[in-house]
Amino acid sequence: TVGQYNLVYNFFSFTIAVMAASTLYFWMGRPLVAQPYKIAVTITGLVTFIAFYHYFRIAESWDAAFTLANGAVEPTGKPFNDAYRYVDWLLTVPLLMIELILIMRLPQKETVSKATRLGVLAAIMIVLGYPGEVATDDGTRWLFWVLAMLPFIWIVYELVVGLSSAIDKQPENAKGLVSAARWLTVAAWLFYPIVFLFPMIGLTGATAETFVQVGYSVADIVAKAVFGVLIFQIAMRKTEAEYGGAKASG
Amino acid sequence: TVGQYNLVYNFFSFTIAVMAASTLYFWMGRPLVAQPYKIAVTITGLVTFIAFYHYFRIAESWDAAFTLANGAVEPTGKPFNDAYRYVDWLLTVPLLMIELILIMRLPQKETVSKATRLGVLAAIMIVLGYPGEVATDDGTRWLFWVLAMLPFIWIVYELVVGLSSAIDKQPENAKGLVSAARWLTVAAWLFYPIVFLFPMIGLTGATAETFVQVGYSVADIVAKAVFGVLIFQIAMRKTEAEYGGAKASG
Amino acid sequence: TVGQYNLVYNFFSFTIAVMAASTLYFWMGRPLVAQPYKIAVTITGLVTFIAFYHYFRIAESWDAAFTLANGAVEPTGKPFNDAYRYVDWLLTVPLLMIELILIMRLPQKETVSKATRLGVLAAIMIVLGYPGEVATDDGTRWLFWVLAMLPFIWIVYELVVGLSSAIDKQPENAKGLVSAARWLTVAAWLFYPIVFLFPMIGLTGATAETFVQVGYSVADIVAKAVFGVLIFQIAMRKTEAEYGGAKASG
Amino acid sequence: TVGQYNLVYNFFSFTIAVMAASTLYFWMGRPLVAQPYKIAVTITGLVTFIAFYHYFRIAESWDAAFTLANGAVEPTGKPFNDAYRYVDWLLTVPLLMIELILIMRLPQKETVSKATRLGVLAAIMIVLGYPGEVATDDGTRWLFWVLAMLPFIWIVYELVVGLSSAIDKQPENAKGLVSAARWLTVAAWLFYPIVFLFPMIGLTGATAETFVQVGYSVADIVAKAVFGVLIFQIAMRKTEAEYGGAKASG
Amino acid sequence: TVGQYNLVYNFFSFTIAVMAASTLYFWMGRPLVAQPYKIAVTITGLVTFIAFYHYFRIAESWDAAFTLANGAVEPTGKPFNDAYRYVDWLLTVPLLMIELILIMRLPQKETVSKATRLGVLAAIMIVLGYPGEVATDDGTRWLFWVLAMLPFIWIVYELVVGLSSAIDKQPENAKGLVSAARWLTVAAWLFYPIVFLFPMIGLTGATAETFVQVGYSVADIVAKAVFGVLIFQIAMRKTEAEYGGAKASG
Amino acid sequence: TVGQYNLVYNFFSFTIAVMAASTLYFWMGRPLVAQPYKIAVTITGLVTFIAFYHYFRIAESWDAAFTLANGAVEPTGKPFNDAYRYVDWLLTVPLLMIELILIMRLPQKETVSKATRLGVLAAIMIVLGYPGEVATDDGTRWLFWVLAMLPFIWIVYELVVGLSSAIDKQPENAKGLVSAARWLTVAAWLFYPIVFLFPMIGLTGATAETFVQVGYSVADIVAKAVFGVLIFQIAMRKTEAEYGGAKASG
Ligand SMILES: CC1=C(/C=C/C(C)=C/C=C/C(C)=C/C=O)C(C)(C)CCC1
Ligand SMILES: CC1=C(/C=C/C(C)=C/C=C/C(C)=C/C=O)C(C)(C)CCC1
Ligand SMILES: CC1=C(/C=C/C(C)=C/C=C/C(C)=C/C=O)C(C)(C)CCC1
Ligand SMILES: CC1=C(/C=C/C(C)=C/C=C/C(C)=C/C=O)C(C)(C)CCC1
Ligand SMILES: CC1=C(/C=C/C(C)=C/C=C/C(C)=C/C=O)C(C)(C)CCC1
Ligand SMILES: CC1=C(/C=C/C(C)=C/C=C/C(C)=C/C=O)C(C)(C)CCC1
Repeated sequence: TVGQYNLVYNFFSFTIAVMAASTLYFWMGRPLVAQPYKIAVTITGLVTFIAFYHYFRIAESWDAAFTLANGAVEPTGKPFNDAYRYVDWLLTVPLLMIELILIMRLPQKETVSKATRLGVLAAIMIVLGYPGEVATDDGTRWLFWVLAMLPFIWIVYELVVGLSSAIDKQPENAKGLVSAARWLTVAAWLFYPIVFLFPMIGLTGATAETFVQVGYSVADIVAKAVFGVLIFQIAMRKTEAEYGGAKASG
Repeated sequence: TVGQYNLVYNFFSFTIAVMAASTLYFWMGRPLVAQPYKIAVTITGLVTFIAFYHYFRIAESWDAAFTLANGAVEPTGKPFNDAYRYVDWLLTVPLLMIELILIMRLPQKETVSKATRLGVLAAIMIVLGYPGEVATDDGTRWLFWVLAMLPFIWIVYELVVGLSSAIDKQPENAKGLVSAARWLTVAAWLFYPIVFLFPMIGLTGATAETFVQVGYSVADIVAKAVFGVLIFQIAMRKTEAEYGGAKASG
Repeated sequence: TVGQYNLVYNFFSFTIAVMAASTLYFWMGRPLVAQPYKIAVTITGLVTFIAFYHYFRIAESWDAAFTLANGAVEPTGKPFNDAYRYVDWLLTVPLLMIELILIMRLPQKETVSKATRLGVLAAIMIVLGYPGEVATDDGTRWLFWVLAMLPFIWIVYELVVGLSSAIDKQPENAKGLVSAARWLTVAAWLFYPIVFLFPMIGLTGATAETFVQVGYSVADIVAKAVFGVLIFQIAMRKTEAEYGGAKASG
Repeated sequence: TVGQYNLVYNFFSFTIAVMAASTLYFWMGRPLVAQPYKIAVTITGLVTFIAFYHYFRIAESWDAAFTLANGAVEPTGKPFNDAYRYVDWLLTVPLLMIELILIMRLPQKETVSKATRLGVLAAIMIVLGYPGEVATDDGTRWLFWVLAMLPFIWIVYELVVGLSSAIDKQPENAKGLVSAARWLTVAAWLFYPIVFLFPMIGLTGATAETFVQVGYSVADIVAKAVFGVLIFQIAMRKTEAEYGGAKASG
Repeated sequence: TVGQYNLVYNFFSFTIAVMAASTLYFWMGRPLVAQPYKIAVTITGLVTFIAFYHYFRIAESWDAAFTLANGAVEPTGKPFNDAYRYVDWLLTVPLLMIELILIMRLPQKETVSKATRLGVLAAIMIVLGYPGEVATDDGTRWLFWVLAMLPFIWIVYELVVGLSSAIDKQPENAKGLVSAARWLTVAAWLFYPIVFLFPMIGLTGATAETFVQVGYSVADIVAKAVFGVLIFQIAMRKTEAEYGGAKASG
Repeated sequence: TVGQYNLVYNFFSFTIAVMAASTLYFWMGRPLVAQPYKIAVTITGLVTFIAFYHYFRIAESWDAAFTLANGAVEPTGKPFNDAYRYVDWLLTVPLLMIELILIMRLPQKETVSKATRLGVLAAIMIVLGYPGEVATDDGTRWLFWVLAMLPFIWIVYELVVGLSSAIDKQPENAKGLVSAARWLTVAAWLFYPIVFLFPMIGLTGATAETFVQVGYSVADIVAKAVFGVLIFQIAMRKTEAEYGGAKASG
């Protein structure tokens, strides 16, 4: 309906604004963190910048797929390319993992191994979800859902168990936030395989589409922008604890 | 009428200029405040930048919805998407709360709890107002008006009572401005639920639309740009009081 | 006639170039003034930037309102939106007042009260002029001319009398320029209510329009760009007198 | 003919490139001069930037005025607006005067009086030339040529005689260049009233137009870009002589 | 098919985002490396920037070559210009060689000779591959494949054998990464002559095209962006080892 | 043919990328050279920037001059404006001369005289080549070829003989590169009068055009970008020799 079309359109517009504002916020804040944390904040801004670009493309595709006039919504025949999300995730989801590992400032060896493992698992997860997303029969969708859940579960295990000892070693004024960032990731990411299932558990047509689009948008905002604010806060607190504040630089 | 169409159009154009100029003013002024206040000033500029973008979109929508020629205004059949305001508010209204909390430089624990509570309440308020805005029957509009007034009143209570003790602890040369910023917020925000009611208390058609658009625009200017100037002044005065002035940085 | 059309068009183009160049000049010159004057110079550039944007819009509107071919000028049916000037003035005229007050570096209390009073009076003046501008009968135009003259006269009184004592306290090498800026404002601003009257004192049709557009453009250039150069000069001289020169910053 | 059309078009394109490159060169070189000379170099870049913009507009107008296809040039009926040059000169010619005065770093009183007098004379000269440019009969063109020659001659006198004593006081390593800049101005400016006369001393139609456009373009390049290079060289040499080099700044 | 068309389109979009993000990451990270490594990091960003531009052009060409509507893909008659890749490689592939040589910080003589030899060999390789790419008969394609393999093998030999002694002299904390960058180059580059052969070893039509486009895109991402991350890591580790960290600069 | 059309088009695209990347490389590298060499590096980047712009225009003109569809190339009737090259050379060729003189850091007197002489000779050479380029009969083309060869030979003489003593005085670690830059100029520039002759020594029609366009593009890349890399290397080596490295600046 027109209301659902407008809700999705306005939600895309809202997500574009959130991602653009977040990018500016993180990159304008970069001079306020110490050098070991600048790269993590750079990546935080890159994630929201990439999401800004992809939501712009998603909104364009949505606009081209439907005509809205005289109180009715009609498809134009041009397909809505929702697979942009997988293009976005394939790059941003590994970067989110790397962000979380970098902000913890683990020993170099551990940083590289954890970042590599979690990043590759995340990419595999997205790649395994793509065939299901573009499929039209439920069998194929279920198959790839199950396959993608395997690396997904491995990631969750790593976040909940594998990172516990690392989090315990964090400075006192950042430990709570690092743990919160870890739990936020787990909670936000759980949305995605659930939203993926909406068309397969009773929701149909335009209502399902509305739930999927709003659901993924909310999850992207939490997993990228809210998560990024936590990463930035952690960087500032660690800067305070380890250096007494950062010297500003360009 | 043509006069009303032009008044609204010129008011949108005016608001675009105010928001663009404010953004430049805040971000060019950032080097003049001390480091603890830079983030508040960054957010102040983000709020007006987001508003600049959304007013640009609102003005585009207004331009596409009507034709003006040979002394008459005719609708084109394309709807005027006034819900952009909710897209704007959903992001900027929580940021305005966070701005006000940050500029007070309360203890960290208190900052996080107040910012979180006020930010979430503000978001809930906007979300609860959206169904009423897109509704066409007065019953639904009243219902969501009442629902949105609940978090609204909670916010006002927090601003008037919950912040009093914090304001008393502010430096002498900034206390008056922080209190003014608090009262300005309360006064400006009272506009919104009143303007929302214009179509339901006797104003009709084009006259109601004119009052609504000009009313919301004036309120946005006061709640964002004028409020931002106060925030910036507070940051500069506190910089003066606590540091003897800020060293310029990038 | 074609000559009058071209004169107005070229004058808009000239004003666009003046405002753009002035903006660049003021903002590139900001590092050369001491910190207490940076905000005044920022605002000076904002005024000319806002004017650049609005003259661009005015020139677009002029271009769309007439067709010029084979030696003749014909209206297209699209109205020329001259009210953009009021949109511009409503923001820039209060800012010009604030510029002048800030550059004097009065005591904080005095700065705030004078800036507020003059800024609000200026805004009221512009708002009271708008209904007259869009009116088509002389009675309404005269009425709002008289009403706008009230705050106008109050502002002139404040500039001529209310600021005298403040100007006497300026450093020796800047006193003359501050006084010149005050007199330039009075002289330039006197243009506006005179130009407003052109269509009512015997000038008609295209000739009146030509005089109005060129008259307002010349006045805007003097009141914004020439006035801005004075403000910038004052800031540099005071920087020299009070600090021995400014350390350059970003 | 096609050859003449292409020659003019290519000359406009060349002038656009010269002015854009000059602007970048001057503004990127600004950190290499001492603070007293930064404003002169800023203005030097503003002059070429304004010229870049106006030549872009002139080239657009030329492109719109003629059609070039199958080996022939045909007018489109849209007029070629050569008066853009006066829009350009009215702003840049006074700025060129100010550039030359500023780079000499005379006593403040003398700088202001000379810059004001030469700037106003230059503006009057351009304004007096405009009615002649847009006129179609030779009588009017001659009349305004003679009138514009009056301030022109006054300027030349000031440059040749009035500045001699000032040039004698310049540092040894810059005196020659300051004198060269003065003579370059006199020589380049002599082009303009001559080119203005081309259509009145026997050159006709397309040939006259070609000579006029190429002539003015060459003169603008010399009077702005070549003159700017001299100004910049002077600033650097004086920086070397008076400060031992400039500390780089933003 | 539509699925294959969308897969290629989404892969181009993904590669655009990767290259844009990589460029920003490398150039924002440049202040974090010591001066001897800044140029290598600059070039790393140039490579991904050039690739970003060329993938944008490739995606445009793909979009113009096919029509997608109502569940079917039809060619438009406009050719898909896949030779943009050679335009890209001709510049980026020599730069990648130079990147690798620069990051090792060999003696100047050795740096110049190795960079020159490898860069020229790389350019020759790309030039020798171009006629085969635009050819339509397998004989010509094989011929130029063999010819291009000659410089290719020489490059691989240089990387595997010629650089071994240089890698042994690297600092301990970077040696592993430099070796990894060398092996990554060899492995990634092996993709290209294999992908080139896809249409000649049994893959046909749309399937071959899909494999070629996705294959080249994956290889470009690995050879440019992933390789660049290694280069950047090496620069940071060497900065740490040789300088104790880099002073930030503009 | 289509192959020739595509080769030229791809070569223009390649040259655009080379010039854009070179510009970024030189301007991002500017902070790494000492102050006496910053201007030379600025000009190096200006040369490639101007070439980037002109190749963009050349490629646009080529695209507008031909239609490519269904395996055939047809002219559109719009002429291909190859004279853009002369617009480019008239500005860049004198700048290349000045670059080479500046990088040698000769005594000021010698720098000015050599730069002026070589720059003016280079401009005369380009101006004398232009009528031949736009001519269609061989007689005129030969005449202007011979005329342009006169300043060309003078320049070559100056580079080979006139600069020898200056090159001998260069620091040891830069002498070889300065000499290489001199020889590279001579070798690259020899291309141009040869390419100019292609249509007159037996090459005809599309084949001649292809050879001319690819030949000039290769020569421009060598004469501007490769030459620029040498200039930049010289600046860095002299910075190292004379200052022990440059302090980074904005
Ligand atoms: C397990 C699973 C999935 C998981 C997706 C996830 C976890 C996506 C996370 C995206 C983020 C975090 C984006 C931006 O921040 C898919 C692909 C939906 C397919 C079905 C199974
Ligand atoms: C209570 C209430 C509302 C309140 C809105 C407010 C308080 C909006 C504030 C917006 C600001 C401050 C924007 C930009 O600065 C609605 C949503 C109109 C719906 C009806 C009830
Ligand atoms: C008194 C009066 C007026 C005054 C306008 C003024 C004083 C405008 C100043 C504008 C400036 C200074 C613009 C930019 O710098 C109006 C509105 C024409 C209406 C009639 C009466
Ligand atoms: C005396 C005279 C003229 C002089 C013009 C001059 C001197 C123009 C200088 C322009 C410059 C210097 C432009 C850019 O640098 C006109 C107006 C042609 C009109 C006829 C008489
Ligand atoms: C040997 C060979 C080839 C090799 C290509 C290579 C090795 C390309 C590398 C490209 C890179 C590294 C791009 C971006 O990073 C061709 C030309 C396909 C033609 C067939 C034979
Ligand atoms: C002698 C001669 C010529 C020489 C041209 C040259 C030497 C051009 C150099 C251009 C460069 C260096 C461009 C960019 O870097 C022409 C004009 C072809 C005309 C025929 C005779």
